[in-house]
Amino acid sequence: MQSSKKISLAVIRRLPRYYRYLDDLLKKDINKTSSGDLSELMGITASQIRQDLSNFGSFGQQGYGYNVENLLSEIKKILNVDKIYKLVIVGIGNIGNAITSYIMEQYVGIELVALFDNNENVIGTTVYGLKVKNVNLLSEFIRQNNIEIAALTIPEKYANDIAKIAVDAGVEGIWNFCPTDLEVPSEIMVENVNLSDGLMILSFRINNQKTSNN
Amino acid sequence: MQSSKKISLAVIRRLPRYYRYLDDLLKKDINKTSSGDLSELMGITASQIRQDLSNFGSFGQQGYGYNVENLLSEIKKILNVDKIYKLVIVGIGNIGNAITSYIMEQYVGIELVALFDNNENVIGTTVYGLKVKNVNLLSEFIRQNNIEIAALTIPEKYANDIAKIAVDAGVEGIWNFCPTDLEVPSEIMVENVNLSDGLMILSFRINNQKTSNN
Repeated sequence: MQSSKKISLAVIRRLPRYYRYLDDLLKKDINKTSSGDLSELMGITASQIRQDLSNFGSFGQQGYGYNVENLLSEIKKILNVDKIYKLVIVGIGNIGNAITSYIMEQYVGIELVALFDNNENVIGTTVYGLKVKNVNLLSEFIRQNNIEIAALTIPEKYANDIAKIAVDAGVEGIWNFCPTDLEVPSEIMVENVNLSDGLMILSFRINNQKTSNN
Repeated sequence: MQSSKKISLAVIRRLPRYYRYLDDLLKKDINKTSSGDLSELMGITASQIRQDLSNFGSFGQQGYGYNVENLLSEIKKILNVDKIYKLVIVGIGNIGNAITSYIMEQYVGIELVALFDNNENVIGTTVYGLKVKNVNLLSEFIRQNNIEIAALTIPEKYANDIAKIAVDAGVEGIWNFCPTDLEVPSEIMVENVNLSDGLMILSFRINNQKTSNN
């Protein structure tokens, strides 16, 4: 993983898309592609694609293009898809349920180990074979099971308290669905999934598009 | 909205965060702030903040800083928060339910007009006062009610078909929760919320962080 250190986060953020497209191609038994083909599929310029892929030492061959399987395997290595991370989810409401079913049904690279909630009506119920635990047990559970990632799908007002508990207990990353910026040490990785931000930006872009057309 | 055309999407994507922070300040009756204060709160450099805010003609006064209310009102105008967009949600599973409750309970700027599904067990049930309709009625409903945004919270395999129906019927934006890039005309705005991408990037960043520390 030495080489990946220099890859910018902007490029990294595009890699899951490459991963999906290449995975689709492979599933269709297409094992050869080019920056031109990928460009058309993905709506990114061919030169951007060549630049992105050259970042991790993958060069298409003139007149042949890229070998899909090799490219996919390199991207998997960089994204570290083969490493299994241990995840707990805190907050088993609609979003907690949604990501539980998503991870259990189709996500590779994550072991969903436990679910937590503070609601007595939810604690003890079973979701995808996991019995929901009392959030009071969160800290101890993370410590004892070397949990690496906590997903927070809880009301905003609890976000920083729960984040602190999870971080103090040893998680290295937080997948944050609360509409707030968490106050955690800089070595803790946070990925925010902010529903309202996306909707605000969508409204802005629609309006802007209309204005530009006038 | 003339001035907003030149603002880059990168800046726009930071505006909802400014919006949240300023809104918080105002709720605490704090009506004066500075790029330094905001920098500390938001973890963005003060010079980046001054640069961002100058984009829409908002200049802090030397020795005073920014007036929170004015700044918030400018950001609201740019984000077009006061315009109410009409939204329908297609797919009333966990994620559909989650965003329904989210919009109904706390989001301003969106009127959630109808919910659609293709599952007979779901059609006819009531969620937040809205009776779930058969997805066969989607096209007609969008046309008759001038719906502007469709949220797609459906299995990936239906994504492009439903997107096409919604776009042909007249929506201007799609809030896409399916892990696929939609094939829609370029004038249709799409905001993707991709769960797997965020989790992949989080795994990568945790691994990268570990490697850098060794």
